[in-house]
Amino acid sequence: MVKKEKFEFIDLKYKPSARNDLVCLFRIIPNRISIKKAANTVALESSTGTWTEVAGGKKDYVKKLRAKVFSIHGNLIKVAYASELFELDNVPNILSSIAGNIFGMKAVKSIRLEDVSFPNKILKVFKGPKYGIKGVRKMMKIKKRPLIGTIIKPKIGLKTKDHAESAYESWIGGCDIVKDDENLASQKFNKFEERIARTLEKAHQAEEETGEKKAYLVNVTAETKEMMKRAQLAEDLGSKYIMVDILTAGWAAVQTLREANFKMAIHAHRAMHAAFDRMPQHGISMMVIADFARLIGVDQIHVGTGIGKLEGDIDDIEEINEDISLQKVKATKQRLTQNWGKIKPVMPVSSGGLHPGHIPFLIKHLGKDLIVQMGGGIHGNKLGTMLGAIAARQAIDAVMKKQSLKQYAKTHEELRLTLKQWR
Amino acid sequence: MVKKEKFEFIDLKYKPSARNDLVCLFRIIPNRISIKKAANTVALESSTGTWTEVAGGKKDYVKKLRAKVFSIHGNLIKVAYASELFELDNVPNILSSIAGNIFGMKAVKSIRLEDVSFPNKILKVFKGPKYGIKGVRKMMKIKKRPLIGTIIKPKIGLKTKDHAESAYESWIGGCDIVKDDENLASQKFNKFEERIARTLEKAHQAEEETGEKKAYLVNVTAETKEMMKRAQLAEDLGSKYIMVDILTAGWAAVQTLREANFKMAIHAHRAMHAAFDRMPQHGISMMVIADFARLIGVDQIHVGTGIGKLEGDIDDIEEINEDISLQKVKATKQRLTQNWGKIKPVMPVSSGGLHPGHIPFLIKHLGKDLIVQMGGGIHGNKLGTMLGAIAARQAIDAVMKKQSLKQYAKTHEELRLTLKQWR
Repeated sequence: MVKKEKFEFIDLKYKPSARNDLVCLFRIIPNRISIKKAANTVALESSTGTWTEVAGGKKDYVKKLRAKVFSIHGNLIKVAYASELFELDNVPNILSSIAGNIFGMKAVKSIRLEDVSFPNKILKVFKGPKYGIKGVRKMMKIKKRPLIGTIIKPKIGLKTKDHAESAYESWIGGCDIVKDDENLASQKFNKFEERIARTLEKAHQAEEETGEKKAYLVNVTAETKEMMKRAQLAEDLGSKYIMVDILTAGWAAVQTLREANFKMAIHAHRAMHAAFDRMPQHGISMMVIADFARLIGVDQIHVGTGIGKLEGDIDDIEEINEDISLQKVKATKQRLTQNWGKIKPVMPVSSGGLHPGHIPFLIKHLGKDLIVQMGGGIHGNKLGTMLGAIAARQAIDAVMKKQSLKQYAKTHEELRLTLKQWR
Repeated sequence: MVKKEKFEFIDLKYKPSARNDLVCLFRIIPNRISIKKAANTVALESSTGTWTEVAGGKKDYVKKLRAKVFSIHGNLIKVAYASELFELDNVPNILSSIAGNIFGMKAVKSIRLEDVSFPNKILKVFKGPKYGIKGVRKMMKIKKRPLIGTIIKPKIGLKTKDHAESAYESWIGGCDIVKDDENLASQKFNKFEERIARTLEKAHQAEEETGEKKAYLVNVTAETKEMMKRAQLAEDLGSKYIMVDILTAGWAAVQTLREANFKMAIHAHRAMHAAFDRMPQHGISMMVIADFARLIGVDQIHVGTGIGKLEGDIDDIEEINEDISLQKVKATKQRLTQNWGKIKPVMPVSSGGLHPGHIPFLIKHLGKDLIVQMGGGIHGNKLGTMLGAIAARQAIDAVMKKQSLKQYAKTHEELRLTLKQWR
């Protein structure tokens, strides 16, 4: 007679509590064991268990803390974690449980954390975005249309003076925001302190000349103390924004940055995300990264393009977009339900290999609460940066006026020539 | 006539400078383009280029900064980056270049950063480990044998009193170090402040009783400011060590922790590493994580086991082990040469699903400069924690005396019973 295995971390009758349980959706491929056994192993390793029985694990108060697999469908499993398992306001700690050792377990061939849903108990200890979509729109005095932005290009190498000049031309042409690229920090040829002073000066000049709000997203990514100094300088100089590479800097630093509560919106670049979200069977999804970024409180985040130089399916990006911009998020096959409560929506950003011809596609799929950024698509315009920015803004205007780009280009020469350059 | 494509970021005659060039070894699978074209795209996106030509990119001083593909062998390419491209002492910034957008590019189906080699210019702006292998040995007064450690189990759930008591039994039994698990921070049932006070008290007691040095590795992982407070408290209470989850906390915070220069060794847990190092074709290798950890200056780091509950090939782990513990590292197929100069070696840690029976295997492959940690393998011992620790220490002694475990077990009852439990 075969002894039936006991799976002490599986309870398919369990109903997670929206107040107390953090829920994770995992996609797992078991490694020569049953899905049930693999699911049990995931839940134990990420909560109170290990590979063998230990005396302390039998204490009643420890048993109560066990994570519970409450759903198994195909390769998708849902696990509920009582919030007592975590230090509630400590994102690195939460991740060390739900996104830690489990990725390396032999019990699975691969495992992907597809989504996470936070309980009220966790939501209420975080600030969430200070500005969010509405706050950014108010600050920029732009009611309905998508914001248009650029990244200074070449992404690295320009001297400070050229950097500021390129920003100025972009703003004058019609860009709302100008941002540093993800790998510009404080290199010798373009030191942070001088760059922010000179570029903000140009922003103010462009505001006076155009009557529009112009923002500079300066990259403060660095060791935490240095990052905080840079953010403080940005605030002192009247910057509206700071930007940070949330993944290469890391979650502890992102929390520190948000908790300082600067009077500036935080723009989150996601450089390195595809190191763990690109493979469909393994890693951590962009949805999860976006969830933690919203929880901590960035105001805008890169979600992808569905077109251009970077990979990413537009349907997936639409789901991520909803996840960060809706208050009540509905479950789909790869997404959990989430009621964000008082946590504000985050402004989604599309960036990477875009040019003005892509704008109707982006707005169609991602809506008007969107920042469209184009670097090469403006500075690589044969007409030059300023006219390139004009063409980009024209493409936004065309969509807002419900005209096709082709139609609008008939009366807008910059757009016409731009569409000819990138067919 | 087909126009021959120009690959401006490839220079196969280039010889990288050990003084100035950071070198990366990438494994790439091109996406329906030639390996040359894919390599060129990787180098441009991670340095001064983008998907289209921009006016600024033609400036002479920008051209000089281009990354250079200088070797292509099968799917392995080597790229040299002039250190001027980086803010030298800013790890997040370096990663945003060499491990940023490139993972998401359509030009490749997959891409893995296999190794990185730092030039002198970067090595000299980092502290590296404060203690390293020699320093840890001196602090612990252990000359030759591997250190033996345990992780309190259940990994989460124990109340402070039980946690401290379990630590005490482990030390009395023969463990040198006792560490928190990666997901224990400051949960309600086991608050940081009380835990460290009580557990260090037990460490001191065990030191008096055994005449040996006993260390507690308290997990300080949290938002940066809170983490620094906890580390300060640990130092104030006379702790020898702190531990941190380097990946869930993130590189900015790890730099901050090291730069504070506490008089404590830093133990690096790698929770989350397998989210991006497990897939052989994509992501970032453990070698790279270990390289950055050594550069910044952790004193010990988890490198894997090659046996037990976690996946990982022992040959790969041997290579990582050499990479962190040698002063001059030789190139292999998947490793670059590195002269670490004044940067001290890091003590490797094997941890995860281990029991005393694994010890000869680990020492054979990884050497004696090693910390062997067993959680379940001590606390899950049917003899209880204290005798479990005795058995583990006996296994270490057996190897040091060049005896097989079986032989040594004949005169050491705890080891004998333990080997019977886990065959």
